[in-house]
Amino acid sequence: MLYASASRDINGERLWAALEAMAEVGATPSGGVRRLALSDEDRAARDLLVRWLEGAGCAVRVDDLGNIYGRRAGTAADASPVVMGSHLDTVPTGGRFDGALGVLAALEVVRALNDADAATRRPLDVVCWTNEEGVRFAPAMMASGVVCGPLAQDDVYATADADGRTFQAELRRIGYAGSPSHRFAGAAAYLELHIEQGPVLERAGVQIGVVEGVEGISWGRVEIVGRAAHAGPTPIGDRRDALVAASRIVLAVRGLAEAAPGVRATVGRVDVAPNAINVVPGSVRLTADLRAPTTESLERALAALQAVCGKVAREDEVQARATEVWRSPPTPFAAEVVDAVALAAERRGYSALRLWAGAGHDAKYVAERAPAAMIFVPSAGGLSHNEEEWTAPDDCARGATVLLDAAVALAR
Amino acid sequence: MLYASASRDINGERLWAALEAMAEVGATPSGGVRRLALSDEDRAARDLLVRWLEGAGCAVRVDDLGNIYGRRAGTAADASPVVMGSHLDTVPTGGRFDGALGVLAALEVVRALNDADAATRRPLDVVCWTNEEGVRFAPAMMASGVVCGPLAQDDVYATADADGRTFQAELRRIGYAGSPSHRFAGAAAYLELHIEQGPVLERAGVQIGVVEGVEGISWGRVEIVGRAAHAGPTPIGDRRDALVAASRIVLAVRGLAEAAPGVRATVGRVDVAPNAINVVPGSVRLTADLRAPTTESLERALAALQAVCGKVAREDEVQARATEVWRSPPTPFAAEVVDAVALAAERRGYSALRLWAGAGHDAKYVAERAPAAMIFVPSAGGLSHNEEEWTAPDDCARGATVLLDAAVALAR
Repeated sequence: MLYASASRDINGERLWAALEAMAEVGATPSGGVRRLALSDEDRAARDLLVRWLEGAGCAVRVDDLGNIYGRRAGTAADASPVVMGSHLDTVPTGGRFDGALGVLAALEVVRALNDADAATRRPLDVVCWTNEEGVRFAPAMMASGVVCGPLAQDDVYATADADGRTFQAELRRIGYAGSPSHRFAGAAAYLELHIEQGPVLERAGVQIGVVEGVEGISWGRVEIVGRAAHAGPTPIGDRRDALVAASRIVLAVRGLAEAAPGVRATVGRVDVAPNAINVVPGSVRLTADLRAPTTESLERALAALQAVCGKVAREDEVQARATEVWRSPPTPFAAEVVDAVALAAERRGYSALRLWAGAGHDAKYVAERAPAAMIFVPSAGGLSHNEEEWTAPDDCARGATVLLDAAVALAR
Repeated sequence: MLYASASRDINGERLWAALEAMAEVGATPSGGVRRLALSDEDRAARDLLVRWLEGAGCAVRVDDLGNIYGRRAGTAADASPVVMGSHLDTVPTGGRFDGALGVLAALEVVRALNDADAATRRPLDVVCWTNEEGVRFAPAMMASGVVCGPLAQDDVYATADADGRTFQAELRRIGYAGSPSHRFAGAAAYLELHIEQGPVLERAGVQIGVVEGVEGISWGRVEIVGRAAHAGPTPIGDRRDALVAASRIVLAVRGLAEAAPGVRATVGRVDVAPNAINVVPGSVRLTADLRAPTTESLERALAALQAVCGKVAREDEVQARATEVWRSPPTPFAAEVVDAVALAAERRGYSALRLWAGAGHDAKYVAERAPAAMIFVPSAGGLSHNEEEWTAPDDCARGATVLLDAAVALAR
């Protein structure tokens, strides 16, 4: 076995075949994927990954959050590993690349090194984090948040989905409740390859995104209380229509993002009560998702949302209150790992752009425990969390190649 | 026995006591009433009404839709009757007056005539229509819709509630499946006293509403299709946010009602997909409830809604289409019955206002088979379909008095 050099390559066709096979697990009729965290589909995806990892000679372990680690030994057995990975869960109508690419490219790095019979000094770990999306069980990045971040295991275990089933019960049900002794315990470096989930790279015609950090996110809930009334006999001027007020807030949220470059603001969820065709809505709950690269701009956006609610409440004579329910502060990545990614792209002759991630990623929490960085590849049309999500085979292969080279460099 | 004259009066205290006793049947802890059609509570209310009708000397019959009729004989036994009534079923958290007032005031008219030992030439029928609300079994005004309107008995019998129990099975279960030969078979006049369910009378300080007809209703569905995308990395300018477009349509619907006096327009229901905090909404379905006193104004409102959808679709680069799914045309009431109501109010010295009903009522279907009109009394705060529904004892008594006088005049 030889120490790995820049001459070994990943097998783009094998990577693509793995992506295709994984996309069958929870495949939707429209070509997307539905693999909610700890569902039967998630279990099937995990089982497939474990088979592949074992087939690639990795020692597989599972921790008490269901995170799966597959280790390719290094020549220095006790050295801190270089860890690569992402997640396999999806949103309800998700795509085939979000998460899966990072896990399967890490697997492909192991397979490519096996093919080349190439050794690294440090062990290489492939990791699959549980419940990155946070859709079935909130919040997002739940398991990396316990292992590396600020989340409490007891809280996570007790979190229930919409049907009242808890994270802990579902983790046991699918057979992925492992041992606390198997948890991630630090790394020489952490690398996560991911699709950009935005249109910046594609629009710039650039092949690789060198991710310098993750933007801050504020999740809020807005509660609007008006007065339910019969849609027939209630004159327009007498109404305290919670949905009319909610609509003004939705448009104001859009407006505050348009007014502040770098800030994104989204109302993704609306629940109306009683939600009947002939009843003036009495109350509405909506969510606000605010993102910005600095704490200051995040605070400004949140204050603007709260001001909008106050204004609409006064003008429409309803109650409207915005409260922040979760915040993830901006996270800059480790310069040495970011530079390793940039250098790998440069040496392969790939065009590259430094940028910040607008979405949360497990790398954000891992960065609290190890030097971390991310690699982005283009998303066609910028689409993600969408069944039409697409990244071309060549882009996937280039991303995996940068992952390979950066991991090998960091594992020396 | 003397022919009735304007000197006999209803007994306001007895009417109020009947309303209070009926409000005990299905009473909710918050002071409202839950008496869903064909439930055990509905049966108990019917049993009470039948006892009262029989106690007042009425011949009671029940038809195959469960409609209850109590006849006070006239001196001309074969003359077509004057029919008075409403319904006893309620919405899930309903009030004590919606429906019950019209039935119990009709009973009080019979009792008052008995007290005065006063005869009418025509028979007087007190009617209680089954399932006016249409909440447990849709649509509304179900039984009057079969007996007088366009609904088919087979469809109604087969209609199931959310638990799969059919109208027919439940009608039999509560013991109110009567004979088709007992159905309403025309009338000299039909009178329905009802609370206004809106604030117009109260605000105008007027005691009696002389209802000239029931407004037309158009129910529509709007489908908006944008593009689901990740709320993080998708720049604002790239979004095709279906909820932003939907919010513009909600506000435009409000605006079109504000711009057209007499028209009411409501978006009561909104369903967002995928409805997740961190996904830009890909599609939204919403409902539109349009009401107007003429077909022309209803058509104009519908055209305006469709124009709004077209404009928003172009500007926001989404698909947005409004389609009408149900229409109930405006129903003008019979001039001679409306005039009898107006004259009765005038002779008693009650202030009165002519207006149109914005909500559906059984009178709408009955008007297809007999000259009909309605009497409104004020609703405190305009509230209805609400546990806090309230009409003062004096207002109830005035409404019953107008019902008495108009019925006596029409029964000559």
